[in-house]
Amino acid sequence: MIKNLQIKEPTLLLDREKVLRNIKRMSEKAKKSGVIFRPHFKTHQSKKIGSWFRDFLIDKITVSSLNMALYFSEDNWQDITVAFPVNLREIEKINYLSSKITLNLLVESVESVRFLKSELKNPVNIFIKIDTGYKRTGVFPQNIDIIDKILEETQKSDLLEFKRFLTHAGHTYKAKSVKEIKEIYKETVRILRELKSRYIKDFPDLILSIGDTPSCSVVENFEGVDEVRPGNFVFYDVQQLELGVCNSDDIAVCMACPVVAKHKDRKEVVIYGGAVHFSKDYAVDKKGNIKYGYLAEFDGEKWDMKDKCCYLKSLSQEHGILKTCDYHFERLKIGDIVFILPAHSCLTANLMKSYMTLEGILIKD
Amino acid sequence: MIKNLQIKEPTLLLDREKVLRNIKRMSEKAKKSGVIFRPHFKTHQSKKIGSWFRDFLIDKITVSSLNMALYFSEDNWQDITVAFPVNLREIEKINYLSSKITLNLLVESVESVRFLKSELKNPVNIFIKIDTGYKRTGVFPQNIDIIDKILEETQKSDLLEFKRFLTHAGHTYKAKSVKEIKEIYKETVRILRELKSRYIKDFPDLILSIGDTPSCSVVENFEGVDEVRPGNFVFYDVQQLELGVCNSDDIAVCMACPVVAKHKDRKEVVIYGGAVHFSKDYAVDKKGNIKYGYLAEFDGEKWDMKDKCCYLKSLSQEHGILKTCDYHFERLKIGDIVFILPAHSCLTANLMKSYMTLEGILIKD
Repeated sequence: MIKNLQIKEPTLLLDREKVLRNIKRMSEKAKKSGVIFRPHFKTHQSKKIGSWFRDFLIDKITVSSLNMALYFSEDNWQDITVAFPVNLREIEKINYLSSKITLNLLVESVESVRFLKSELKNPVNIFIKIDTGYKRTGVFPQNIDIIDKILEETQKSDLLEFKRFLTHAGHTYKAKSVKEIKEIYKETVRILRELKSRYIKDFPDLILSIGDTPSCSVVENFEGVDEVRPGNFVFYDVQQLELGVCNSDDIAVCMACPVVAKHKDRKEVVIYGGAVHFSKDYAVDKKGNIKYGYLAEFDGEKWDMKDKCCYLKSLSQEHGILKTCDYHFERLKIGDIVFILPAHSCLTANLMKSYMTLEGILIKD
Repeated sequence: MIKNLQIKEPTLLLDREKVLRNIKRMSEKAKKSGVIFRPHFKTHQSKKIGSWFRDFLIDKITVSSLNMALYFSEDNWQDITVAFPVNLREIEKINYLSSKITLNLLVESVESVRFLKSELKNPVNIFIKIDTGYKRTGVFPQNIDIIDKILEETQKSDLLEFKRFLTHAGHTYKAKSVKEIKEIYKETVRILRELKSRYIKDFPDLILSIGDTPSCSVVENFEGVDEVRPGNFVFYDVQQLELGVCNSDDIAVCMACPVVAKHKDRKEVVIYGGAVHFSKDYAVDKKGNIKYGYLAEFDGEKWDMKDKCCYLKSLSQEHGILKTCDYHFERLKIGDIVFILPAHSCLTANLMKSYMTLEGILIKD
């Protein structure tokens, strides 16, 4: 059990039971749906936490950079998708990794495929990124000529194998309701299936891969696709909570931060915990207000968020300003620790670099 | 000279000449005004860059955490102000540091002073944080009873010495014009001087310390105060540029990022460089639009921003979306490097952890 007094500066707590429960739930849904579960490891970026997925028979993963692929390959992950448009400047890393593991690269342009064709030393799998409406990256499904050209170039090389159409329907993060998330999912699947039916004759092993945590959390089964790659679900956070795709009880990480000042006139508590700990990303609540996190209560064994009465309203480099209700304002003293569910767990974990489990074990790698 | 081809992933470039020019300008203004220049090192967080200040005879510095104070004390900085409400949980670090260096701590409550009085092992200087209108931290100047109580407690201890009133007029960051910044500065000085005249009889060595880069950059001299503690000015950034307190040519750091995709329909270029590199902080331009950075051009020796035609419009964990003009859209190819002036250099530097100078030297510490 973690001792409150051990915490001297901003610390990212991790509830291992909740993490395992989140993995189990997603893993079972994927299994029931008969799809490959290829979790995105960019959320935790930890070999230790990654190893917990092995108990659920996961052997394929997703990452968002070649550096992350290198890191996890060191821990014997043998089938890694880099879900990011291939960075030609890192061809040396690509050639190194592809000599060790099954490396899956994303492409969305003929130029990138041509470059790979001329520079690759080992086989890699090619996933074509499709834009199903997020408008960040990917080929629009109606741009059949680009897809055809990519496939044509791919087939000219013995080292490139076209494997799947992949999408990240990130526009679910802007959805106003769970219903809207489900509609986006439905439309995403429809678009991908149309592509599949067009190309399945030439590529009988072609599979469809989808990604985002909101969709993967709210749909009941993954009928119609072949692979899911959610990442954030392992921890969840206040962004997902406000989207309505998780409960506060599902949030598996929590920041513990010292109280350094109190301001009665505006019912604000100043904490040691700022943008360099939480990141400046935020959630937007149902009324359109910006929230950098919500206060939870910690009984020495578990944290729990009873209501949303206290929230992080702003962050400077090292300071956080917690807006409180009367009850918590009176309760909290300078020198106390507050427990805060973060707005965006991926970016908070990226900054904090380590986790303290509720058993008091430090996870640094 | 740095070779474009050396850059394979997001890299923070640093123009040493610009850094030295920024330090020189602020240092000379402080000298001319007859005030102490105690630069804030939270922006660069680097011993190497910190050492450049020594050529300007700087021997007193500001940091924003005890960890940062520890780090710089290792490099023989002997007089350090931790410009953050004292964190009681770190009393061991305080006792260690105060045995080695002149340690200046910020207080804004009687509770904190009482705690220090009972736990301190060595002398420290006490700075009372005054809130001159930012409403983040500090005692309001009208709360004379709190100030009196803090002073009373301070005087009961041989280890606590009251030294100065300190403020950070961070509301200058919300100013709509340089004129407004100057008005905030004037009002800040007026408030602090009123306090000084009230307490000078009992504390004849009492000095007034101000902080923010916007004020320190736009006022012509620091008449009326005794110490200045700006930090961001060493690099500046797009936030300061949009505030009108620096020129684009003053911005001394620039992100170099690979181009990984292009989208002609929306004139967007996708770069490898996201929230884990830039941070999610942003600048707001004159029209109220959010900008995560501006494109600069690099001729192999220097970068230069001719106009604001291309800007970072959004950031995901690893992706950045650069909105471009026709000219730059056509010019930029997949595999090229783009050069981007960051919105908030402090947070970008905090994430990047290292700098590459234009001479090709890596600064990692």
